[in-house]
Amino acid sequence: MAATETIQRADAMAGTALEDAARAARTAGRALASLSGARRRQVLEQVAASLDQAAAEVLDANARDVAAARAAGTSASTLDRLTLTGPRLAAMSAALRVTAALPDPLNRTLEGRILPNGLRLERRTVPLGVLGIIFEARPNVTVDAAGLCLMSGNAVLLRGGSDALATNTALVSAMHRGLESAGLSPDLVYLVSDPSRESVTRLLGLSGLLDAVIPRGGAGLIRHVVEHARVPVIETGAGVCHTYVDASADLQMALEIVDNAKTRRYSICNALDTLLVHVSVAPAFLPLLAERWAGKGVELRADSRALSLLPPGTPVRRAEEGDWGTEFLALVAAVRVVDSLDEALDHIALHGSGHSEAIVTNDLAAARRFEDQVDAAAVYVNASTQFTDGGEFGLGAEIGISTQKLHARGPMGLEALTTYKWLIRGDGHTRPA
Amino acid sequence: MAATETIQRADAMAGTALEDAARAARTAGRALASLSGARRRQVLEQVAASLDQAAAEVLDANARDVAAARAAGTSASTLDRLTLTGPRLAAMSAALRVTAALPDPLNRTLEGRILPNGLRLERRTVPLGVLGIIFEARPNVTVDAAGLCLMSGNAVLLRGGSDALATNTALVSAMHRGLESAGLSPDLVYLVSDPSRESVTRLLGLSGLLDAVIPRGGAGLIRHVVEHARVPVIETGAGVCHTYVDASADLQMALEIVDNAKTRRYSICNALDTLLVHVSVAPAFLPLLAERWAGKGVELRADSRALSLLPPGTPVRRAEEGDWGTEFLALVAAVRVVDSLDEALDHIALHGSGHSEAIVTNDLAAARRFEDQVDAAAVYVNASTQFTDGGEFGLGAEIGISTQKLHARGPMGLEALTTYKWLIRGDGHTRPA
Repeated sequence: MAATETIQRADAMAGTALEDAARAARTAGRALASLSGARRRQVLEQVAASLDQAAAEVLDANARDVAAARAAGTSASTLDRLTLTGPRLAAMSAALRVTAALPDPLNRTLEGRILPNGLRLERRTVPLGVLGIIFEARPNVTVDAAGLCLMSGNAVLLRGGSDALATNTALVSAMHRGLESAGLSPDLVYLVSDPSRESVTRLLGLSGLLDAVIPRGGAGLIRHVVEHARVPVIETGAGVCHTYVDASADLQMALEIVDNAKTRRYSICNALDTLLVHVSVAPAFLPLLAERWAGKGVELRADSRALSLLPPGTPVRRAEEGDWGTEFLALVAAVRVVDSLDEALDHIALHGSGHSEAIVTNDLAAARRFEDQVDAAAVYVNASTQFTDGGEFGLGAEIGISTQKLHARGPMGLEALTTYKWLIRGDGHTRPA
Repeated sequence: MAATETIQRADAMAGTALEDAARAARTAGRALASLSGARRRQVLEQVAASLDQAAAEVLDANARDVAAARAAGTSASTLDRLTLTGPRLAAMSAALRVTAALPDPLNRTLEGRILPNGLRLERRTVPLGVLGIIFEARPNVTVDAAGLCLMSGNAVLLRGGSDALATNTALVSAMHRGLESAGLSPDLVYLVSDPSRESVTRLLGLSGLLDAVIPRGGAGLIRHVVEHARVPVIETGAGVCHTYVDASADLQMALEIVDNAKTRRYSICNALDTLLVHVSVAPAFLPLLAERWAGKGVELRADSRALSLLPPGTPVRRAEEGDWGTEFLALVAAVRVVDSLDEALDHIALHGSGHSEAIVTNDLAAARRFEDQVDAAAVYVNASTQFTDGGEFGLGAEIGISTQKLHARGPMGLEALTTYKWLIRGDGHTRPA
């Protein structure tokens, strides 16, 4: 048998296995969806207990993943994300218990009324059904995502990163034991064991079998997903975030907000990428900022006016066109001086990715215009964009941050994993011609 | 220049024109979105008035479309859908005025609270932005869809059927004059003038430029869209609808409901496709139904038990496996006798498309199980599935019936054309490490 033929056969078999898993997940999901909220909470508690019991087994598997990754020359930051410890594992089961304590998103009546013809109409929340979650390195996502799906009555197909395959296999085995002890099918949580990019493509091709796929990861993964998806997708992740310091801003407040938005954590999607400063305050503000960032290692990409206002010795180079609209995910910030709020709004409309945008101002009219005009998931007045997060917004937990507008926008909690059905009760109603 | 090269160049130019249209639509949409609900109502009134004034021009264009379609041997039913008359045109502008009178879906606060750290959080409805609507024959969709998009603050790219191109061009010209008289840009409503399938593919490739595409049409169109979409899509249309007559059903009520669900209109997505009858009432019910349908021209596809219960002379053939799960869109119904509610639920889970499903019963426990277990957009107890419709549900108007679970499920009104943004107001808040 030729090599390509072998690959094709293996591929077809893998495709069939995935389809079978999706069908089994749907059947198992029907049983889960029929449980009360109280029972679903118990299920999560049992899964958490099972994870606690499996600590030695999981840490052992993780040690193998870490050793393999180190041997392969993986970067220190990736190794750190991959590595589990006793406390990190305990935090994972603790997070499941937090999810179990959240308000039940299912079986809520969103609206209801008796229509003029006597039909009784009710719109009630129900699970989406079967979800696909695609993610990279961090093994805690395996448990977090499974917990959010189970609490919202959904079955899930998980496709984690290849680096963490042994760890994820051990975690999912432990969760399976928890599900079985709760009297449920392990088919509710399926781990895609093929870590190739082809397995992502196969998952995305399960049209009619998956109700939604949520990719969590870098721009490359998201692009691949958008390109290949034959199932509904909720895009997450990429954020090109601006903070605009208005003419009326309290500059000390602006300094704290801008510094926090860039340097609290720079590798996350809600971190500042571009700073816009009104021309009337730029001469005072930019030197203050340069002073604050001296020694912090923040590199600037400045337009010519900003460049002329920064003190000598500031780590800066002239901004190129490509710097506007770039998500740096690094200690880099683009800086531009603007003549007006309008110019800031135009810049954001052109270069923003619709994630998180902020204004620092003391002018109520400016705040209101910014809120109304900026088209983004999260629009801030006098606060750091780093607050864009499910936990910070009070959603309790987060499956990701949606950067599209359909279904859910911004941080997605349990509610984003539900849909609704219309229930219509008559007593023999027929529709007139 | 070789022919393929000419085509490729023309294709690239058409692609650029479409991208330019989408960008212009977004700019124009920002102005529309900033208008109050009262102003948007006035805009719709002005567009309606402009349509009324353009009646002669539109009817003239329509006569050319109809003549060309007739010459091309188009079917009588398609010709009928294509043909406009004075009253049909008046109904289109009247529908715009109905849309203008609906509750404003924008600028509603969905939730709001002050977080423990003092941040003030608000979730507010806003337009999706720029939509693509793909549809076939009927020109009234051109006006309905544009009206719903404008009222919800969205710009729209319309791609109608090739049969109606002259009509649609005249309708959109008239709407443009209405928009201009309201001080708005005609870029808000763009008609894709290339009626080829390639123009659909190009529209679906406008990643980052369209916020959602809604295809309205047959299974072939929907499949093409799912295959080629690089933008978020809301699938609409296909419905494989079951009605289950339970052991406890009032058979007279069941007869009225089943008859209405199939024969009121058979070419729409909420029409009955498969009838499931409990074995204990099948001997009484099926002859009643055969009698009701005698002379109505309904053809049955029956399983062996149903076959044995139907009186001689009933237009029926034995059901084949492919009949279950088929959307007939014709005077055809599949019929199966089941032994239990569970068997009916399993059949629906296997063959239903998640559109509209009904039970006829007097047993409260059976009604409740059916409502809870059936995974469909609309689940009926003792009513005809033909009620699945935005107008009937009190949504006022309908852009389509979603058959997917993300964003909107079932009939979609103005609300389905909105998303939300999170507004976060602080007084210098920075996120702790």
